[in-house]
Amino acid sequence: MLMSAADFRASLDRYRPRVFVNGDRVERVSQDPRLEPGINAIGITYDFAHRDAYKSIMTARQGTSGKTINRMLHIDETSRDLLDKLEAVRLVCKESGCAMRYLSHDALNSLFQATKRTDDAHGTDYHQRFLAYLHRVQDEDLTLGVAMTDAKGDRSKRPAMQSNPDVYVHITERRKDGIVIRGTKAIVTGAPYVHEFLVMPCRTMAKGEEAYALCCAVPIDAEGVTIVARPAGRPGECAAKFSAKYGQSTGVVIFDDVFVPWDRVFLAGQTEEGGFLTTSYAAHHRHSCIGARAGFGDLLIGAGALVIEANGLDVDHHGHIRDAMVDLITITESFYACGVAASVYGIKDPAGSMMPDTVFSNIGKLLLATKIYDMHRIAHYVSGGLVVALPGPDEDHNPETKASLSAVLAGRQDISAEQRLEVSRFIEDLTASYQGGWYSIISLHGGGSPEAMKREIWRNYPVMEKRELVERLLDRGVLDEGRKVSKQPGRCCATGCEVPKPALVSE
Amino acid sequence: MLMSAADFRASLDRYRPRVFVNGDRVERVSQDPRLEPGINAIGITYDFAHRDAYKSIMTARQGTSGKTINRMLHIDETSRDLLDKLEAVRLVCKESGCAMRYLSHDALNSLFQATKRTDDAHGTDYHQRFLAYLHRVQDEDLTLGVAMTDAKGDRSKRPAMQSNPDVYVHITERRKDGIVIRGTKAIVTGAPYVHEFLVMPCRTMAKGEEAYALCCAVPIDAEGVTIVARPAGRPGECAAKFSAKYGQSTGVVIFDDVFVPWDRVFLAGQTEEGGFLTTSYAAHHRHSCIGARAGFGDLLIGAGALVIEANGLDVDHHGHIRDAMVDLITITESFYACGVAASVYGIKDPAGSMMPDTVFSNIGKLLLATKIYDMHRIAHYVSGGLVVALPGPDEDHNPETKASLSAVLAGRQDISAEQRLEVSRFIEDLTASYQGGWYSIISLHGGGSPEAMKREIWRNYPVMEKRELVERLLDRGVLDEGRKVSKQPGRCCATGCEVPKPALVSE
Amino acid sequence: MLMSAADFRASLDRYRPRVFVNGDRVERVSQDPRLEPGINAIGITYDFAHRDAYKSIMTARQGTSGKTINRMLHIDETSRDLLDKLEAVRLVCKESGCAMRYLSHDALNSLFQATKRTDDAHGTDYHQRFLAYLHRVQDEDLTLGVAMTDAKGDRSKRPAMQSNPDVYVHITERRKDGIVIRGTKAIVTGAPYVHEFLVMPCRTMAKGEEAYALCCAVPIDAEGVTIVARPAGRPGECAAKFSAKYGQSTGVVIFDDVFVPWDRVFLAGQTEEGGFLTTSYAAHHRHSCIGARAGFGDLLIGAGALVIEANGLDVDHHGHIRDAMVDLITITESFYACGVAASVYGIKDPAGSMMPDTVFSNIGKLLLATKIYDMHRIAHYVSGGLVVALPGPDEDHNPETKASLSAVLAGRQDISAEQRLEVSRFIEDLTASYQGGWYSIISLHGGGSPEAMKREIWRNYPVMEKRELVERLLDRGVLDEGRKVSKQPGRCCATGCEVPKPALVSE
Amino acid sequence: MLMSAADFRASLDRYRPRVFVNGDRVERVSQDPRLEPGINAIGITYDFAHRDAYKSIMTARQGTSGKTINRMLHIDETSRDLLDKLEAVRLVCKESGCAMRYLSHDALNSLFQATKRTDDAHGTDYHQRFLAYLHRVQDEDLTLGVAMTDAKGDRSKRPAMQSNPDVYVHITERRKDGIVIRGTKAIVTGAPYVHEFLVMPCRTMAKGEEAYALCCAVPIDAEGVTIVARPAGRPGECAAKFSAKYGQSTGVVIFDDVFVPWDRVFLAGQTEEGGFLTTSYAAHHRHSCIGARAGFGDLLIGAGALVIEANGLDVDHHGHIRDAMVDLITITESFYACGVAASVYGIKDPAGSMMPDTVFSNIGKLLLATKIYDMHRIAHYVSGGLVVALPGPDEDHNPETKASLSAVLAGRQDISAEQRLEVSRFIEDLTASYQGGWYSIISLHGGGSPEAMKREIWRNYPVMEKRELVERLLDRGVLDEGRKVSKQPGRCCATGCEVPKPALVSE
Repeated sequence: MLMSAADFRASLDRYRPRVFVNGDRVERVSQDPRLEPGINAIGITYDFAHRDAYKSIMTARQGTSGKTINRMLHIDETSRDLLDKLEAVRLVCKESGCAMRYLSHDALNSLFQATKRTDDAHGTDYHQRFLAYLHRVQDEDLTLGVAMTDAKGDRSKRPAMQSNPDVYVHITERRKDGIVIRGTKAIVTGAPYVHEFLVMPCRTMAKGEEAYALCCAVPIDAEGVTIVARPAGRPGECAAKFSAKYGQSTGVVIFDDVFVPWDRVFLAGQTEEGGFLTTSYAAHHRHSCIGARAGFGDLLIGAGALVIEANGLDVDHHGHIRDAMVDLITITESFYACGVAASVYGIKDPAGSMMPDTVFSNIGKLLLATKIYDMHRIAHYVSGGLVVALPGPDEDHNPETKASLSAVLAGRQDISAEQRLEVSRFIEDLTASYQGGWYSIISLHGGGSPEAMKREIWRNYPVMEKRELVERLLDRGVLDEGRKVSKQPGRCCATGCEVPKPALVSE
Repeated sequence: MLMSAADFRASLDRYRPRVFVNGDRVERVSQDPRLEPGINAIGITYDFAHRDAYKSIMTARQGTSGKTINRMLHIDETSRDLLDKLEAVRLVCKESGCAMRYLSHDALNSLFQATKRTDDAHGTDYHQRFLAYLHRVQDEDLTLGVAMTDAKGDRSKRPAMQSNPDVYVHITERRKDGIVIRGTKAIVTGAPYVHEFLVMPCRTMAKGEEAYALCCAVPIDAEGVTIVARPAGRPGECAAKFSAKYGQSTGVVIFDDVFVPWDRVFLAGQTEEGGFLTTSYAAHHRHSCIGARAGFGDLLIGAGALVIEANGLDVDHHGHIRDAMVDLITITESFYACGVAASVYGIKDPAGSMMPDTVFSNIGKLLLATKIYDMHRIAHYVSGGLVVALPGPDEDHNPETKASLSAVLAGRQDISAEQRLEVSRFIEDLTASYQGGWYSIISLHGGGSPEAMKREIWRNYPVMEKRELVERLLDRGVLDEGRKVSKQPGRCCATGCEVPKPALVSE
Repeated sequence: MLMSAADFRASLDRYRPRVFVNGDRVERVSQDPRLEPGINAIGITYDFAHRDAYKSIMTARQGTSGKTINRMLHIDETSRDLLDKLEAVRLVCKESGCAMRYLSHDALNSLFQATKRTDDAHGTDYHQRFLAYLHRVQDEDLTLGVAMTDAKGDRSKRPAMQSNPDVYVHITERRKDGIVIRGTKAIVTGAPYVHEFLVMPCRTMAKGEEAYALCCAVPIDAEGVTIVARPAGRPGECAAKFSAKYGQSTGVVIFDDVFVPWDRVFLAGQTEEGGFLTTSYAAHHRHSCIGARAGFGDLLIGAGALVIEANGLDVDHHGHIRDAMVDLITITESFYACGVAASVYGIKDPAGSMMPDTVFSNIGKLLLATKIYDMHRIAHYVSGGLVVALPGPDEDHNPETKASLSAVLAGRQDISAEQRLEVSRFIEDLTASYQGGWYSIISLHGGGSPEAMKREIWRNYPVMEKRELVERLLDRGVLDEGRKVSKQPGRCCATGCEVPKPALVSE
Repeated sequence: MLMSAADFRASLDRYRPRVFVNGDRVERVSQDPRLEPGINAIGITYDFAHRDAYKSIMTARQGTSGKTINRMLHIDETSRDLLDKLEAVRLVCKESGCAMRYLSHDALNSLFQATKRTDDAHGTDYHQRFLAYLHRVQDEDLTLGVAMTDAKGDRSKRPAMQSNPDVYVHITERRKDGIVIRGTKAIVTGAPYVHEFLVMPCRTMAKGEEAYALCCAVPIDAEGVTIVARPAGRPGECAAKFSAKYGQSTGVVIFDDVFVPWDRVFLAGQTEEGGFLTTSYAAHHRHSCIGARAGFGDLLIGAGALVIEANGLDVDHHGHIRDAMVDLITITESFYACGVAASVYGIKDPAGSMMPDTVFSNIGKLLLATKIYDMHRIAHYVSGGLVVALPGPDEDHNPETKASLSAVLAGRQDISAEQRLEVSRFIEDLTASYQGGWYSIISLHGGGSPEAMKREIWRNYPVMEKRELVERLLDRGVLDEGRKVSKQPGRCCATGCEVPKPALVSE
């Protein structure tokens, strides 16, 4: 059953979570204006699955069940799947700024791999348990939040060394029918308006930290769960035409001795596989982030083209403006290309699914993490300073100033002041507001900070292979198959250097 | 008479300007909470002139009058003056984010030069008229707003070609007792809470555009002046501890047939000197911007150090964090160094004052214009993602969540969650809010966009001198004084190249 | 028939071109030590086609003939072909520095497209003529040089306006049996040791410049052809262990009234298709350059790993060294990813072949063009200053210093001074020598300078599509298929703004 | 006595050093063509001291002796001295590429400081001893080489832990009349053609490494000294019109039990002061490097202007070319500005001399170290690809090709092909040759690698002061003098946040 955006909103009423926003208890998530932009953003992923033009990338056929499901819940099986997911994420994010639901995809795919691996190593039955859960999620077309980033406390100390153990979520009791968990996840995107949380570890745990190597599914209204969230986007702000419609709420989620039955537990104590789960999730998620931020790039490119025109400029006569736009395109498409390459060079997992190439996924995310600031800079460069100087939207209705402002704030004669202000405010909204800050920081730190990506790149790159290439070219070590080297004596200088000869002679 | 901040606020009550903020008419500027952060920021320049530790750089002895005045109103006479002004601007901006009053300085200094030049070329008496005005401004310790950036209309057309002539301020009538001006200035910083505006041209006018080559002083409550402004900073926002205190309002200023008596007119029709006025102002102002943004850099460096500590990190063990801080320092101090060099290589004007070197001033401003985005990036990098994820300040008083959040959101044991949140919100305020956007866009476009700086650098750099150096080194053209070249025949190869010889032989 | 490297060298003896190197006439190209590194480099593309491990990417089945041929002469038919070509180019370049023969591929593919287009527009029969030529080239396994970049003369003037018409190659006579061409091509890579030249236009010609819209094949020893070349690599230099083996000669080629029979003429006067030929070649070639320079990146990555070790450093304890290596990897793989994306999104040409996506090809080339300098910088960063300070190779045999130098120049105890010097000299060779300069400049300007790429990116990017997206999101203009917009009246503020609503409502 | 360049060359004959170049023993340094470019480069510093136009910056009055001496041997006493030195270094380097003798200055200044400090701490008499030596060096107008960078061996181990102790120079014997030293310095610029070496420690030594904390002066022909050097520049290469004239030789210097009498010993065992000597030298030297590389920038700027013209381009019509030139200027002048700021904020040493500010000196050097690669890139960008493609100089005399090449390789009609080739080869020489590599690597690593600068910047920057500023702005901790804070109760929201108030209230 593929829900629509309206169905999704209605489905939220099936849950009664304990949610606070700005210090107030939220009575009914689906109706709270402060959360509406977030619900709208996720809604895009539901509605687009029904549109003919997008069906081929927004839906997929799940191999394990044979059913047609939303792409955001699909287990990737081929490079094509990875590419389709990448394009699907870009599509929904260029419509909504950030449609968030790809987080569900990323977590499900990493769990598909990790549960199989855990079973193979430990003889457990997590994979079947997970498959049952997966199929239900797909059938009911749910949205899952990812509760991964722990509060962490003192960052110079490991989980087990913290003075307050609750800064990391951990198992406090193992019962016959399930486990009890406790602790705080600090950054959960979309927390108030998802159906369930997937609780996952945010780092590799060491021996002795088994209680922290934990993965399970928890409905958002499970007993003991409290969500403390910010409003999604900029609801109710007139100046924020876009972010009043679409936005994202980020929340802290507190687990206060929450019981989880075994059929929802997918990891409990296997530290090594927990580490694998974390890095596998990171690869999927960083790959998705690439699509998401490329969609954001699309918004800036389009807005840039509009504002240049509204200012009365023409890229053909202003080379520096065209140059800036080309920079913006180059940034966007070069990190997107890393997502494409990660798809093409995807890795088949023993579990049967396909994971994007780690190196390319991490490079793409690393690039967007720092280049997002350049994207903002270029958007400001082409828009001119008006973006922060223009009067606020309340002024639009002031009879004492309206006429004179309209008369002088127009750029080109065929584009009204209103249209110019509108696109200027759109750029302000995306780049020079709290929402703009959110986009940049979430790009920088979401899915791990740059340092984490650099470590993954180094860990996974075939440096040794390239080192051996150079050693061979320097005539060190053994030669590879089928090559013969001619090493005729010769002299290149008075003192007797050997004449360098081509390494490769065939006959 | 050097006013205090309190005096300054009180002095605003002497004026009754027509000001709109967010669509409402402002009754009394000095008491409007939406403008208070702006008044506070300028107030710093008044109060610091009274503090013993700062007197030497915050005040100066005006050569033409012999009186002690505020540095922000001083006509620079030496390189030391330029350096003192640079340091003074940094000082007041690191206290207030941006104390704006250096705009008064920049305009007064360029007028000092331009009026002299106009008189020399045209036999007019603008310079004496300006001196009388200057001394009054200094004696009364006023703050002047700079009304320079015209609305501009269609940017592909020159002023005289616009369909609506009011997109540029221009003279509509020359009377015996003065002139009448009309038009709109689109970006006037601090507009609602200054004493007077200096109306100045924003570009070099051509022949036929004499009506636009115009400079004069207008009290903010002159008949026919309307100010449409945004609030200063983020007044009343609990999350904005800093920007609720200090901020800047930017306004549109409409001149609807405003009469200006001749003793307040400093340019009226001299297009060439109008062009000089614009570029001279640009040199002074870009030099000041360097100091201002270095002060902003100081705030980020300090906040970075605090937040790293609050997160429980230690730069000695996290090289990538130290690296980022060094980058932030390098950015800040390298553009500041350009301000220092512009002071050292200041140019004595025929009017007797000292102008900062154009090339270094423009390079410094060009660097900060683009590097401000990197400064934001680095601040986010060292702060971690918490900056956008942390619950809003309303949550701090929620009895249902306060205790648990406090317990888990602390970083180091000796630093409370409250302190950590406070510094995180400080960084959010400066870099991930409307105010953060304002700082970046005003850095990019304030005082002219990067393209304008590049043109000035090219126009003023001694390229020809370096070209001649290389021509001489290639033995082309004449030799300079006292050198003899030995050109003995010789051969370096079989076909007869001449042996290169040292260009310089002394005996 | 797939030749080997030895066959290729022997085949050069079938030609008797008029070649000058360093002012001397070359008697026999195949035996001249100054050209040997160039012949070796191209030889790699022959030998690798015989190696089992590489056959699948180094050879291909030509669709029009059904024969198995060298990948460097193949007309791409699928995205897979494009990807295989990209990988093949990387493979041969990481072995040889730059194996050049991909130029043959790039020219043949653009001619395949352009001749079809010309015939379609003008009813000519160039395509069949070209196919016959193509099959002969493939069957004989030839290497073709690309004679494209004209001498250009005064760059501010168009071809037909030059005072010396010979600065562009042009048709001087059309005869019944063929054409006569005249002029100079200034930068022809590998000129002395290819079999034939493909003479191609380097820019779009305008009406009236028909004589310059010219494409034909000319054997290198055709009457009237003179080649003035530089040595390939650094032959005979002891310090250049690698570049004495592999290198590239760049030559000026003078066409002094050279006759070309019609069956070798593929364009003669069709200015528009000449323009298409130029840009199509550019797309293929820039795509190939990406593979080539990624191979160069592999060499630097490998050398970096070796020299770090030889210096006694360890990336795990020196984060800044690891960081630099990750930067080098990120640069290399991010422009390579653009080549992958250009393959995936290849465009089917009406002629039946596949062209890499223009935007991604140009972005990849644009990135490598400027990043090559960063690659050099990083190589120097990780190698330390020893690279330019170490004694030259002649010193290695000096009995008076050898022992003491060996004793002190070793880094780690298990790595001899000789090994350390060898890898240091390898880095010097690739980055701090004439050859290093060649790599950087050829990366910057080869296949067109950055400005050319920027123009192509702008010309081909779907800016309008993104502009329309934003217009739609701002509720301007028509809605796309199947969406309904709810525009309920509402108010967000006292003065009556409309409540923003989600654009998308489904039911 | 101020020598001339000719005197300098002649003075070298007073020494009989044991020098090897390319494996050969050099008979007479002053006459060896392979070293002539180096002697010429240093010669500039002698000749320019005699030229009227330059006397004021090329000479100085030494305070301790009252004599007029060469600026390159002066102990700086004022900020003006530091600025004069900076300008002097730029002057001689833009004439010669790099005139090297500023190394003498840098070492003498650091010794002036360090010997005083050592005496103060240990009651020794090094300072007087050093003054006597200094005055002799100044009176005889000598050039001193700096033997600082040890061979280092395994970089992961400290000096005392090396398996071969000779990888660091150290004291092997303390005698009544002097010390005996032993070991190898790996990178000594200008080694073969200076008068004496100042042997200095290259790092801070720890307790137990007293034998390595060593500074003394050694004539280059002292018994036991061997110099193994590379040729200076590119002597005898026709293509290198500039570097055949001016260049720098870098050498390894082996000290094989060299005796040094006490009056030439300036540090022997004081580890702490040895550390100070190293960092003080670094500050002086990095400051000098800024001037040196700015001179190199001047050469590229001039050559860029010439080659653009020779190519027939015009910056007014090619915005991207002008942009590139402005980038080159911006890079050069922004790091130069750091040198100016380091002079202005110079620090008075207890010894009575003036040291450039450490932070600005290090930032300037850090910038040039990495930006040199961008300088090369820009030079290539504006020159076009011809730089590596043009035929070598031997071709200029080939009667068979000369006329046709001249005809087609000209750019503008009024600039001959010869002139165009000449400036193209000049750019190749400086940026795409061994010499170009030397300039970039010596910029990156000379005077310490970027990591060393970053550590110095961090160690010396007043981070704590900025941290306290932010703490105060957040109303933490004590207030500074004379400020009163109004903390009236107030509410900004329903839950009771305090109203933020301006920190500063004056009355």
